[in-house]
Amino acid sequence: MTFDVARARAETPGTDHVLHFNNAGAGLMPKPVLDALTEHLKLEAEIGGYEAAAVNAPLRERTYQAVATLLNASVDEIALVENASVAWLMAFHAMLAHLRPGDKILTVEAEYATNYISYLQATRTHGVEIVVVPSDAGGAVDLEALKNLIDARVKMVAVTHVPTNGGLVNPAEEIGRIARAAGIYYLLDACQSCGQIPLDVEKIGCDALSVTGRKYLRGPRGTGFLYVRKDRIDELEPPFLDLHAASWITADTFDIDPTAKRFENWEFYIAGVIGLGVAVDYALGWGMEAIHQRVVGLAEQLRGSLSAIPGVTVTDIGAQKCAITTFTKTGISPSEIKAALAARKINVSVSGRGSTLIDMDKRNLTDVVRASVHYYNDDAEIATFCEAVEAL
Amino acid sequence: MTFDVARARAETPGTDHVLHFNNAGAGLMPKPVLDALTEHLKLEAEIGGYEAAAVNAPLRERTYQAVATLLNASVDEIALVENASVAWLMAFHAMLAHLRPGDKILTVEAEYATNYISYLQATRTHGVEIVVVPSDAGGAVDLEALKNLIDARVKMVAVTHVPTNGGLVNPAEEIGRIARAAGIYYLLDACQSCGQIPLDVEKIGCDALSVTGRKYLRGPRGTGFLYVRKDRIDELEPPFLDLHAASWITADTFDIDPTAKRFENWEFYIAGVIGLGVAVDYALGWGMEAIHQRVVGLAEQLRGSLSAIPGVTVTDIGAQKCAITTFTKTGISPSEIKAALAARKINVSVSGRGSTLIDMDKRNLTDVVRASVHYYNDDAEIATFCEAVEAL
Repeated sequence: MTFDVARARAETPGTDHVLHFNNAGAGLMPKPVLDALTEHLKLEAEIGGYEAAAVNAPLRERTYQAVATLLNASVDEIALVENASVAWLMAFHAMLAHLRPGDKILTVEAEYATNYISYLQATRTHGVEIVVVPSDAGGAVDLEALKNLIDARVKMVAVTHVPTNGGLVNPAEEIGRIARAAGIYYLLDACQSCGQIPLDVEKIGCDALSVTGRKYLRGPRGTGFLYVRKDRIDELEPPFLDLHAASWITADTFDIDPTAKRFENWEFYIAGVIGLGVAVDYALGWGMEAIHQRVVGLAEQLRGSLSAIPGVTVTDIGAQKCAITTFTKTGISPSEIKAALAARKINVSVSGRGSTLIDMDKRNLTDVVRASVHYYNDDAEIATFCEAVEAL
Repeated sequence: MTFDVARARAETPGTDHVLHFNNAGAGLMPKPVLDALTEHLKLEAEIGGYEAAAVNAPLRERTYQAVATLLNASVDEIALVENASVAWLMAFHAMLAHLRPGDKILTVEAEYATNYISYLQATRTHGVEIVVVPSDAGGAVDLEALKNLIDARVKMVAVTHVPTNGGLVNPAEEIGRIARAAGIYYLLDACQSCGQIPLDVEKIGCDALSVTGRKYLRGPRGTGFLYVRKDRIDELEPPFLDLHAASWITADTFDIDPTAKRFENWEFYIAGVIGLGVAVDYALGWGMEAIHQRVVGLAEQLRGSLSAIPGVTVTDIGAQKCAITTFTKTGISPSEIKAALAARKINVSVSGRGSTLIDMDKRNLTDVVRASVHYYNDDAEIATFCEAVEAL
């Protein structure tokens, strides 16, 4: 099956302006997403914020359905929130409330800073212990080591599916099987994977999964969602509650929403919620399998071309890789590379030690250039990009 | 000084479409705010989300400065967050972490549901006790009663400045003097007051204050901010931390941001942040004193006209009143009134028992119609509105 790259580019205004290899930062919004945002904001200015929300209530409902379809979940398992970090933090702290001093949380070497900082905070506030599961020879989490580390004190495994850099894809489904067998919480950070890799929460077997709208889903900044497995919702009390997540019944009592909406709060960036739904539907229109094949192929091509450039070291790990690639070049720092490329309207980002500290320290890395492709990128852009890197 | 209503209306596209008395829900955005939102979103689609944020970094910085100016605070005391509830919840839970079982939180009769639900949750999670300070004859918090309730177990006073309905303004500065004298936390919910009443955190003496962008500030939905007093920031550890609020230093350590930015998180609705700054500057351009005089005068006029309509009961309380007025009419429910007015392109909202349960139960109210004016509303609209209500 050929991917209709021409259509993808025609529907992406940004491809006329920049060579965008910063999709792991924020993907370029397709025109339908931008249109949905600006149309709703205009309507708000014309008839009022709540009144516009009422008119476009079906579009908001569609967002829940689109996200549920994307993840093979039900709408009652979806909470729409500000971003992936809020989604992850709400689920993590709700799970953490069930842990006792001495209980253990298992995580992985390439864990994201936000998550790891929260684990460290939890060691102080809840007396829990953090155990980093070693990686296998390829750089993914070592499944045998994970299995062997499970004991009666392990109550949670929390894993970044695709780390913010390094190209790695952790084996989410295999981790899920181990977590389910052990009967422990399994929290999956899918911030970088959703939109580039097909995700099926039934196959993964996670209890909760957090996603942002702005990266591979190409949705608006300031949007995200949380999936919470139906049979876990009741026991997971959100650390924050408001009059949307709960109802005030009598002076002394309140009821918490029985669905994943308990993790939301009343005030939404409504235009963003609508735009997120359009973005998810747009991704579903291309098909997640087709997108995945396309982006993995492009990234592999990029890795190959980069590796051939004198002085360039591709710093990716893992047997299974994704659309993100990272590299360094001798004689020029990642920040200088980013700036030099920006001057040519080429977008990349720099990933620093502090975002995946354990993994970076282990590999003696400080900063790396992150080039992250999407399906609307093409062969010509890879060639242009590599010429530019070579010329630096 | 005359208020240039003609200019205010000309700069408010919505005044051509609706009679908007739902400013306590969401104010109509002025054209400069809408333009700032759509221009930034367009730029994101053209050059990328992070790249657009870099280009417009000065506009984001301006938002901090504008908010600081609005509140008479410093920029280091301002956190930009998703909405007022998130702002309030972050501050409340950071304060709550310092309370011990048996400690008491004082609050008021017209307290907002989100806050009260959080107090009730805290009775379970932290063993604290909630004490509702009685109101005076007018309906505001009774300051003498508040003083008398202070004892060694009282550690926090948390107050809604302007309740979601009822027209009341609680005496924020007087409460502040009592709280400062007692050396207890003072958390002020200024969600409905900011943008219609001048706020000076030095005069108020609060430790933290939460605000939304969408109501009287006429900013974008999905924006809000938190003020935290400089000398309290260090002791208030946010319940949620991410790699923006804190830095991961070594495998076992992290540093929390020394400013109020510790209450933020990395991913922002950047267009909204910029739009919020434009909205605050727009309000500052009119002047908060001028806005306050104008809206209080209009609301008083509306109350007078409504009271003269047969069957209408204005259900407002408090000696000092604000731009919000509430009423009922015999023979027709508040929901029916809202729907009938909506058919004539008149926007109001319905305030239900569950949003201010203690106050509503005390006054034997269930639902009331909430009509909330802003400075761009005019005499002709008040006349039209009252004719419409009378005709129902």
